[in-house]
Amino acid sequence: MSATPMRLGLFLQGAGHHVAGWRHPEAESGGENLPLIQRIAATAEAGKFDLLFLADGLTTGADAHPSTVARFEPLSLLSALAMSTKRIGLAATASTTYGEPFHTARVFASLDHISGGRAAWNAVTTSYARSAANFTRGEHPSHDERYAIAEEYLEVVRGLWDSFADDAFLKDKASGTYVRPDAIHTLNHEGRYFSVKGPLNVSRPPQGHPVVIQAGSSAPGQRLAARSADMVFTAQQTLEEGTAFTQGLKRQVREAGRNPDHLLVLPGVCPVIGGTEAEARALYAELQGGIDPAAAIRLLSDRLGHDISGYDLDGALPDLPASDQIQSRAKLLTDLARKQKLTLRELYYLVAGARGHRIVWGTPEQIADALEEWFRAGAADGFNIMPPFFPTQFERFVEDVLPILRRRGLFRSDYEGRTLRENLGLPRPENRFFAKQAA
Amino acid sequence: MSATPMRLGLFLQGAGHHVAGWRHPEAESGGENLPLIQRIAATAEAGKFDLLFLADGLTTGADAHPSTVARFEPLSLLSALAMSTKRIGLAATASTTYGEPFHTARVFASLDHISGGRAAWNAVTTSYARSAANFTRGEHPSHDERYAIAEEYLEVVRGLWDSFADDAFLKDKASGTYVRPDAIHTLNHEGRYFSVKGPLNVSRPPQGHPVVIQAGSSAPGQRLAARSADMVFTAQQTLEEGTAFTQGLKRQVREAGRNPDHLLVLPGVCPVIGGTEAEARALYAELQGGIDPAAAIRLLSDRLGHDISGYDLDGALPDLPASDQIQSRAKLLTDLARKQKLTLRELYYLVAGARGHRIVWGTPEQIADALEEWFRAGAADGFNIMPPFFPTQFERFVEDVLPILRRRGLFRSDYEGRTLRENLGLPRPENRFFAKQAA
Repeated sequence: MSATPMRLGLFLQGAGHHVAGWRHPEAESGGENLPLIQRIAATAEAGKFDLLFLADGLTTGADAHPSTVARFEPLSLLSALAMSTKRIGLAATASTTYGEPFHTARVFASLDHISGGRAAWNAVTTSYARSAANFTRGEHPSHDERYAIAEEYLEVVRGLWDSFADDAFLKDKASGTYVRPDAIHTLNHEGRYFSVKGPLNVSRPPQGHPVVIQAGSSAPGQRLAARSADMVFTAQQTLEEGTAFTQGLKRQVREAGRNPDHLLVLPGVCPVIGGTEAEARALYAELQGGIDPAAAIRLLSDRLGHDISGYDLDGALPDLPASDQIQSRAKLLTDLARKQKLTLRELYYLVAGARGHRIVWGTPEQIADALEEWFRAGAADGFNIMPPFFPTQFERFVEDVLPILRRRGLFRSDYEGRTLRENLGLPRPENRFFAKQAA
Repeated sequence: MSATPMRLGLFLQGAGHHVAGWRHPEAESGGENLPLIQRIAATAEAGKFDLLFLADGLTTGADAHPSTVARFEPLSLLSALAMSTKRIGLAATASTTYGEPFHTARVFASLDHISGGRAAWNAVTTSYARSAANFTRGEHPSHDERYAIAEEYLEVVRGLWDSFADDAFLKDKASGTYVRPDAIHTLNHEGRYFSVKGPLNVSRPPQGHPVVIQAGSSAPGQRLAARSADMVFTAQQTLEEGTAFTQGLKRQVREAGRNPDHLLVLPGVCPVIGGTEAEARALYAELQGGIDPAAAIRLLSDRLGHDISGYDLDGALPDLPASDQIQSRAKLLTDLARKQKLTLRELYYLVAGARGHRIVWGTPEQIADALEEWFRAGAADGFNIMPPFFPTQFERFVEDVLPILRRRGLFRSDYEGRTLRENLGLPRPENRFFAKQAA
C-alpha cells in the first residue's frame, strides 16, 4: 500500500444519487428503509470504507430529490448504525445556521461515545433560504454572515468538547468522588453570535473531538476549512479544477500553520459501473432516460437559485444575477456550463445525475483509473462515492473496483486503527483546558 | 390479568437514582456506560416493561447528581437501544423551552421509524433557569410563559407529524411517482411563539404520533397534560395525595372531552429491595450513610431554588419565598416538609434518595403490596421505577417483584402489541390533514 492510502467515504442516500436511480429494476430505495441502509453500511464496512457520509436538509416537498423527500434524522440514524457496524466512521451533516452549539456539541460527543470514537460532523451553513421558514426566523442570513456564524459556532463546539479532562471521572466508591471538580472547565463563551457558558454535560469524546468536515467550497468556506476542518467534501468536475482546488486549499492550510496532511480533501464521484464500457454507457443512458424533464428543471432551478423553466432547453445557460444565498453551488454549475458550453438540457442531466458532482462511467478498471488519476495528481486525498442507486451499483463498486485499487496499492485491506481519526491518520486534538497527563 | 394492567416504566439513570447508590459494592455506574445501559434495557424488556424513560437536563457541574454530570444525549442513546431491543418503548425527555419544534418533531419521528413504533417524547419546559446561559438567551422564561410556549410547541410538533398521509409514498417505478404530491401537507403555522411552515422531512411515524409524556404537576402542567398528553410522570408521596392528583387529572381529561383511560398517570417509585424487611432497611440506611451532607444540601438547595446551606439541619424548613422558576418541584418538597414535619436533614435524605419521589423499602412482597395498593386505589395507572442503583437492585425488581405482580393478575406476561401505543392501550391518532383510507 502507498504511504498515504486513498480515503473513501460512502455518501449514503436512501434512494440513490441519480434522481431517477430508484426507478432502475435493480434499485431498492427509501430514505427511511432501515434494513436497506443497514445492508449498505455493512457492505461499506466489509469494503473497509473510511466513513459513511449523511447529507442533511431542513426542508422538503414533492419536488425534492427522492432521497431527501423524507429521510431519517442523521444523528438518530447514525446512532442506530453504530450498533450494526464496528469500525467504519459515521459522519452526519448538521447546520450551524439552524442549530445551537450546545446541542450540536452534545449529540456528536454522544455519538462519539456510543460508536467508540467513530463520529464526524459535517458542518454546513444551510444554503436554502426557505429553511428559515421552519425555524421562526424572518430571514435567512447572507452567505458571508452564515460563515461568520459558522466560525464562531465551531469555536464554541470545540470548546464544549473540552469541558472535561480525559481522566475526569474517578468513580471512587471509597472516597465518594464520582468526578474530580478540578477536571471540569466552564467555557464562559461570549461572542458576537453566541453566549454559551458550559460545561457540556457529556464527557470528552473518545476522539478528543469528533472529525470535523466542511462542505462549502466558496472562499469563506475554504478559509474556515483551512483553519479548522479535518476533511473537506467538494464537487470538482475536471482534473485541472480539482488539482487547483485541492492544492490551493492545502496551501491555505499551511499558511494557517497546520500540517496539510491533516486536511483531507474528498471530491464527490458518482461511478456508473458496467461489465463493459458499452454496458456502462447504456446504464447511464437508461438512468438519464428515467428523468422527468419538468422535475429536472425544478431541481436545476433550485440549485441555481433561479427559475429557468421559461428558457430554451437546447440553448445555452442564460445570464443569471449572482445568487447571494448559494454562492459556491450556483457558481460551480454556471462555471461548468460556460466552460463546457453545455446546453440547459445537458446541465440538468448533470445535476440530475449527481447534483453537479463528477460522474464517471465505465468498467471497474476504468473507474479505478479515473480515481487513481486524480489521487496521484494531488487533486484528491480520496473520494466520497455517490452510487447512482442502491444496493447493486454500490456492491459492484466494493466487489469489482476496490480489489483493483488494492492491487494497485491505493486502498487498504483492513482498518489501521480503532477510531475514525486513527484510520484517517489524523491526530487526536489535545484538550485546550487540561494538559495531557504524563504517560 | 386484570382488564387494565399496571403500566411500568424504567427510569434509566446510569449511576442509579439514589445520590450515593453508585458507591454500593454491587453498583456499576456511568452515564455513558453503554454496555451497562444495554444490559439494563435487556433486563427491562425481558421483564416486559412498557418503556425505558430517560430524563434530561441542559446543564451540569461537579455538584450535579452523579447520573447527570455526564450522560448520553437521550435521542442518540435511544436510537442505539432501539437496535438492541425489540418491543420495549423508548421515552426521551426534550425541552420545549430550548428546542425547535421542527427539530423535535424530526428526531422523535425518526426514532419512531427506527424503532418500529416505540418512541415517546417526555415534553418538559426545563425548570433550571441557568439553562438559558447555554443557549444565548438573556433570560429563562417564567413558569407560566414556559407552559404557554410548550402548548404551542406541542401543537406545532403534532401538526408536523401529520405532514404526510400514511400512504404518501408510492415509489412506482413505472410511472416515476416516488411520492404523491397531494399527500403532503404544508402546515403554515403562525403563532405567538413560533412560525413553522413545514412540511416535516420525515414521513408519518408508525405510531401516527409518538407517545407524548408530560412531567410537570403544576396547574398549567396539568392543563396541558389533560388536553394533549398520553402519559403523565409525577412525584407523589402519599396515597391520599396520589389519589387526589390522579383522579383530579382524569377529571380534567374528561372535561377536555377525552377518554380518561387515554391519559396514563405514572408516579415515580424508588424500590429498595431486601430479602427481609430488616435487610431492606439496612440497605436503605447504608445508602443514606453514603451521602455527602454538603453535596446533599447543594442538591436540596437546587431543587428548592434557594440556598439553604446556612440553616440548622435539625430544624424545620425555613420560610422561603415562592420560586417562580421551579414551581411544582419546589412546592412538592415544601408541602412534604410541612405536612410530615420533616427537618432539613430528613428532607435532604428524601431528595438524595429519589429527588422527592416516593421511596419504598422492604421485601419483594412488601414492594408489590405498596404498588398494588396505589394501583387499586386509583392513585396510579402504573409506576416509573427508579432503582437506587444498577444493575442488581433493578434485577431484583424484575426477578422477585414482577412475578408477584403477575401472580396477582396485575402485570403482563408478554407484550400485547407491536408498538408502544398498542402495548399501552392508546389509540393511534388520526392524521388531521388526511382522512383515513377506506379499508
